[in-house]
Order: sequence, then C-alpha cells, then structure tokens
Amino acid sequence: MDKTNTSSDRIFAKYWIETAFPLDDAAAIMAGEQSTGTFVRVPGETDELRERYAARVEHIVELGAVDSPSLAGSGLPKKHTGPVLRRTAEVTLSWPIENMGPSLPNLLSTVAGNLFELKPFSGLKLLDITLPPAFLSAYQGPQFGVEGTRRLTSVHGRPIIGTIIKPSVGQSPDQTAAQVKMLAEAGVDFIKDDELQADGPHCPFDERVPAVLRALNEHAERTGRRPMYAANVTGEIDQMLRRHDLVVASGGTCVMVSVNSVGLPAMTALRRHAQVAIHGHRNGWGMFSRSHATGMSFIAFQKFWRLAGIDHIHVNGLHNKFCEEDSSVIASACECLTPMFPAPHKGCEIMPVFSSGQSARQAPDTYKALGSMDLIYACGGGILAHPAGPAAGVRSLHQAWEAAAAGIPLAEYAKSHEELRSALEAFAA
Amino acid sequence: MDKTNTSSDRIFAKYWIETAFPLDDAAAIMAGEQSTGTFVRVPGETDELRERYAARVEHIVELGAVDSPSLAGSGLPKKHTGPVLRRTAEVTLSWPIENMGPSLPNLLSTVAGNLFELKPFSGLKLLDITLPPAFLSAYQGPQFGVEGTRRLTSVHGRPIIGTIIKPSVGQSPDQTAAQVKMLAEAGVDFIKDDELQADGPHCPFDERVPAVLRALNEHAERTGRRPMYAANVTGEIDQMLRRHDLVVASGGTCVMVSVNSVGLPAMTALRRHAQVAIHGHRNGWGMFSRSHATGMSFIAFQKFWRLAGIDHIHVNGLHNKFCEEDSSVIASACECLTPMFPAPHKGCEIMPVFSSGQSARQAPDTYKALGSMDLIYACGGGILAHPAGPAAGVRSLHQAWEAAAAGIPLAEYAKSHEELRSALEAFAA
Repeated sequence: MDKTNTSSDRIFAKYWIETAFPLDDAAAIMAGEQSTGTFVRVPGETDELRERYAARVEHIVELGAVDSPSLAGSGLPKKHTGPVLRRTAEVTLSWPIENMGPSLPNLLSTVAGNLFELKPFSGLKLLDITLPPAFLSAYQGPQFGVEGTRRLTSVHGRPIIGTIIKPSVGQSPDQTAAQVKMLAEAGVDFIKDDELQADGPHCPFDERVPAVLRALNEHAERTGRRPMYAANVTGEIDQMLRRHDLVVASGGTCVMVSVNSVGLPAMTALRRHAQVAIHGHRNGWGMFSRSHATGMSFIAFQKFWRLAGIDHIHVNGLHNKFCEEDSSVIASACECLTPMFPAPHKGCEIMPVFSSGQSARQAPDTYKALGSMDLIYACGGGILAHPAGPAAGVRSLHQAWEAAAAGIPLAEYAKSHEELRSALEAFAA
Repeated sequence: MDKTNTSSDRIFAKYWIETAFPLDDAAAIMAGEQSTGTFVRVPGETDELRERYAARVEHIVELGAVDSPSLAGSGLPKKHTGPVLRRTAEVTLSWPIENMGPSLPNLLSTVAGNLFELKPFSGLKLLDITLPPAFLSAYQGPQFGVEGTRRLTSVHGRPIIGTIIKPSVGQSPDQTAAQVKMLAEAGVDFIKDDELQADGPHCPFDERVPAVLRALNEHAERTGRRPMYAANVTGEIDQMLRRHDLVVASGGTCVMVSVNSVGLPAMTALRRHAQVAIHGHRNGWGMFSRSHATGMSFIAFQKFWRLAGIDHIHVNGLHNKFCEEDSSVIASACECLTPMFPAPHKGCEIMPVFSSGQSARQAPDTYKALGSMDLIYACGGGILAHPAGPAAGVRSLHQAWEAAAAGIPLAEYAKSHEELRSALEAFAA
C-alpha cells in the first residue's frame, strides 16, 4: 500500500478479489456499495455529493485468472456471453474520514461490511488498512506495548518466556495458585489463564485471581522477580472493569481478553480504564482466516485491536499444531512490531505472542525470521514436559535463545548446555 | 439437534466437519481443545476432572466423502499410509455450563474459539447451539421482539413495510429529515439509517436524529401514524448509550446497531439501558458465512444476538443482490421466529428483516416460504423508483401482501390494483 497517503485525511483499504466482472466494474461496485450506493440512483445523489463522499478506486493490480470460483453463489455480468474468465486482483479503495469519523466500529462496517456478500465476487478478502493519524485523537492505542511489557516483567535482551495454566478448566483457585507458584519458581516470566478459564462456579475469578496473585506477590518478595500473570477478564463490560480493578488491587500487572468475544467498543472501554497491560487472545480468528477467499488478513485485523488498546496479541508459532503456515505466522509477528502511523505520531507497536506446540527447538528459526527478541514465547509442554522438570524447561529456552542470538546451531550449543540437550531429545521434530 | 437436552445444564453445539482423521478421533480432538486439553496430558488432569469438565462428544453423523480438501493447511493422522479418505460429518459436542458460566462472550470462545484452526480439519463450521435456560438469568433477550415492534408501529395483520435512507452518506441533517418526511407521507412504516451513516461531520448524529424525529413527530400529530425510525447509534459504548438517550428524548422508538462492529458485551450493555427497540444490522456477516467450510451458520449466529437483546435482525431477501440462496434466507428468517428456549421460558423471538433488491414481486414467495406476516419488508428502489412515486410504491407492497395472504397470483390481483400493476412492470424479474 502507498504509505505516502497515510498523512492525508483518507482511509485506504486493500482487498484481494476474484470476479468474472471486468475489474474496473467490480471495483466500482465495491466502492458504491460501501459509500453512497444503492441499486438505483436516487434523486438526492448529486454529482457534487458523489465527488465528495463516494469511495474512490485508487489502484487495481491484476493477478492471475482461476479455473473455478473459490466460493459458491457469485454471479456473472448481465450481458455476459461466451466462456467465463474469472480474474483475481488487488484493489485499493479509499474513503474520506468524514464519511464515518474516527470510529473503529463504523470503520469496520465501512471496510469490512456488506461487500463480502456482493454477487459479482467469488472471493473478496480484506488485506490491509491504512488510517489517518486522526484516529489517534479518538483512540489511545497500547498503553504498555513492547517497552512497557519489558518494564513490568524486568526482562530485557531476550524474549519473555511464557506459559499457560493447564488443564484449562477444572482446577480450584488453590490448585491454580499452586501451579502458578511452581511455574514462577521454575523461572517463567509470564503466565496466562487459558481462554476457556473465565468465571465458572468451580474456579470463580474473584477467588482464583487473588489466590494466584498472592502466590506471585510472595514470590516477588522472596526473589525480587515478579512474573506477569494475564488474568482472563473476558465478560460483560462491567465485569471486565471490575475484574481489572481486582487484578490491580491484588498486585497484578496484566489482564487477558478474548478480543473476538468482546468486540471493539468493549476493548476501547477497558483500555480507557486500564492501569495494567492488556493481553489480546485471538481465539475465533480461524473464522476470519481459514478461507483464502473471504474474511480478512491478520495484518488488517491487528490494526483495529492495536488502536483500541491491546499490548500483546497471539500470532501462533512456528511448526504449530494449527493449520497456519510459518510464513504467515512471521508476517503477523513482524506487523505487530511495525508502526501503524508515521513518526512523530505514536506507532502503536505491540508484543507478538508465539504459542502452540513451542519448545526450545523453534527459537533459532523464530529469531532468524523475526529479526527481533521482542516477543512473548509461550510454551506449555515445552516447559512442563521437560524431562528434568519445569525449571530445566525454562533454562532450555534461555539457552536456545542465547544460541539463536549468537548464531550458534542448537545442536552445537547443546553440547555444553545440559537442559537444552534434554529438550532437543524430548521434543524431537 | 436433540431438543430434549435443552432442559439440562449443558450447552450443545453442532458442527459440520471435514477431516482425514477417523471421525471419533477428530471429534475427541475438538472436545479436548475446547475444554481441558493440551497437547500433553499434564499432572493436574485427573480422571475425575476430565469426567466432570471435559467436553463430551454427543453424536457423530457421517456424511459423504470429498475428493479434495475444502480449505488448505490441514494435516493427516500421524501414522497414515495409503490413499486419503476425507470424510464429512455432523458432530455434536456438549459442555457443562459450569465451565464458563452463563456468559455469552465466554460461550463464544468455547464453541467458536481455537477449533476452526485445528490441523486435522480441512473444514469446520458451527451449525447450531442449544443453551440451557440458565442464560436467561444473565441476559434479558429482546425487549420488544415481534409483538412490541407491532405495538410501536401500530401495524397488525401484515408485514411492516420499511425502507432505507439513500444515498447512504452525503446528505445534511435537513435533507435527511426532508427525505424521511416524504417517506412517512408515502405511508412507510419503518425507516432506517444506512449502516454507513453514523456520526460524520457533514451529518452529525446529534443534528440528524432530532431533525428526523421532529419530522416524524409532526407527521404523527397530523396523521396519528408514527413510523419507526431506526437511528444508527453504532459507536463506542458511551456514545451508543448517549445516542440512545437522544433518540428517546426526541420521541424515537428504535435504535440501529451494526452487531459485528460492536460485539456482544456492548450490545448487552445497550440492552440493559434501552427503552426502545434495537434493530440489528448484520453487515460483515459475509466473513462468517461466505465459505461453506468455516465460520458459522446464521442459525447459531442469531441466537447470540437474540439473547443479548436485539429485536430485529437482517436476513437478506429473496432474489437478492448478494450471493445468498433463497433457501438460506428463509431458513434464517424462520429461525428468528422460533423460540430459543422451551416454554414456560421466554422464547426470545425477533423480527426478521428482509431487504436487498426487494419489491412487490417477492411478496408471495416470501409469504409462502415463511408462513408468517411477522417480518419487516424493507424496499429501497422498490418504493422510491415506483413509476407513480413512493406512495404508489408503498401501496403496491400492501397490495402484493394482500394478494399473497389471499393466495391470489400477483398478475391476477394486479388487474384490479393499479399500483401493483405498475410495480410488476417496473421491477421485472
């Protein structure tokens, strides 16, 4: 996308499309549907009005043709005869910000509203958005981001080593606190609730969180190290704000939210209220991403949530247990560390969270591809299932990242580092 | 889905899946991921805990096999050899409500969270959910629904005839009010903002809505008829509540919200505060629905929003300008009118809103398929582009629905009904 346009007062959105319509017509239909349009031109729709408020087609880049439609239900141009040529293309549209004002919910309806269902398209995906800095007057963006998360965890010069409380559900508050104590003693920097652990009657938030944070407070007094605990506050708005306050009152430094489950306005409300970091969990993301032909890219998705105020977001991990390719994982993570607005505006960079089947083994590839130590590296089995115990699991991760930073192959570094050697044996590819 | 289970304290979710794994294994992986599971069994995961909290596989109904994977990125079982048989099936899982409590955001993370991305699946779609009535203790459901909307509009025995203000953006508050006055005088029952009309500087909400409602108040005083105006309050939570209050203070009876743009907790907060009907706009729905192999069905989708408190929801219309088939439109509309909970509990029925390229022409097919007059039938060009003007457009719609109700073919009824005859000529199929 043409980044020179970001200083204007227009919003840009780039799409991948697949259509049997002439590309100019297809792009004009998208622009019409998402601004002034209806299927008949109505009396009030003057040329001046169209010039000022209609979405503009900025660029069309034709890509290859496809043999068959990716999605069912699309149509052909009215006067079409002969064989169907179904083209793909990248289309960039733009809107004046005055159409909706700097409002994330209304922006979403504009760039990702009805147009996915338009008849001419057998595929349409939102790839990227570029917003004018006017949005920074209405939204706060991340409060802690990369630097603030490092400050709160006192971890510098290496990734923040994280883990997840498992089993996801079923443990009592005291059992959870005992597991957290064990993980803190093992040297973990960051511990999160599972997204399925919320406020069930067997493990109420109001009992679990003070119990866990008491354990971490005692650990901090004893050792001087305070791991960050991301307490899952996902719920109704009043619940989230109240739970946030309990986290703060109990000495916590982070809350976790399932972003798709709460929506943008709830996140904005939480951010305005927040005194601690907001850990964004993207569960449900598959609905937007699993089809190549509909939904939106993570590049576009995470910009909404960064502006709304998250400090961390999950990006999956290399060689993960899900369907996502490694290249997509790395593109997502890189984007989190890329400014959304040009200097001197706030860039809204956030911490990418790598997780899903991670262990010492993926550290070198992750570092090589990301080119940064600014990440949360979350391991479940990669810590808990280490043959010599969780503390050895954490040490194996430190060693793996030391090796990655120094450009030394893991197998080589493992010769002089016992915990790494065991990890490589235990977590064979 | 087995409706006899609805009186229990379990949550049921039915999925369509496509997988190269044995179906029992695939279903067990879904259940594990969405409850206690991780990729290694951890020490705290006792048999008792699994028995009590693990999701259960309730039913598996095998469907046909497919030749090639619907979605890319899926995997094969570890020890797989020989040719791949990729089966499809319907799988029903259940969870105890104590896993997450009666919380819609946490329910969404549970039934529509990480599982879409699981490696064994080349397709996975949420088809339906069945909730225990305990959710009615935490959520209010629709405040007005079908009967309340009829009461507020004084329309009985026929569909509520609606229309949309167009052009979507660009008109001033006074121009908008003048258009609404004209539509009211034409006899329309229901008028809505476009979802792209929010609070832009050229048509601020705080000027548009009082101007529109003044026009409707004057119309009501003059005629005794008060059309419902769905003012688009979509925005941040504080904005939505304040805008709602301005609607009430100005004499309005409805607010409109783009449901996907605001999320469940914001809707719940609005519902708790609301004194008027909530018109749900589903823009962005295509992201959930366009692929047959991921996302969720409208059947499942609308249950979340009904419980959160909407009174109306868009369902597209027959012969629409989008990609959706007529059978899908009708299934959606029927579901809106079907109770979500068994009597004596509240059923949470809501008004389906038919729109997109609608005119007199679709009335008989719509009535025949839906078997009810309980709908909002929204026409843009079908009213405004009627050759004899908007009032004749509205009359043509009344006549079409009279004919539908009486089982008289439109062409026959048109012989004695001038406006219907013109409509059928103007809006040829």
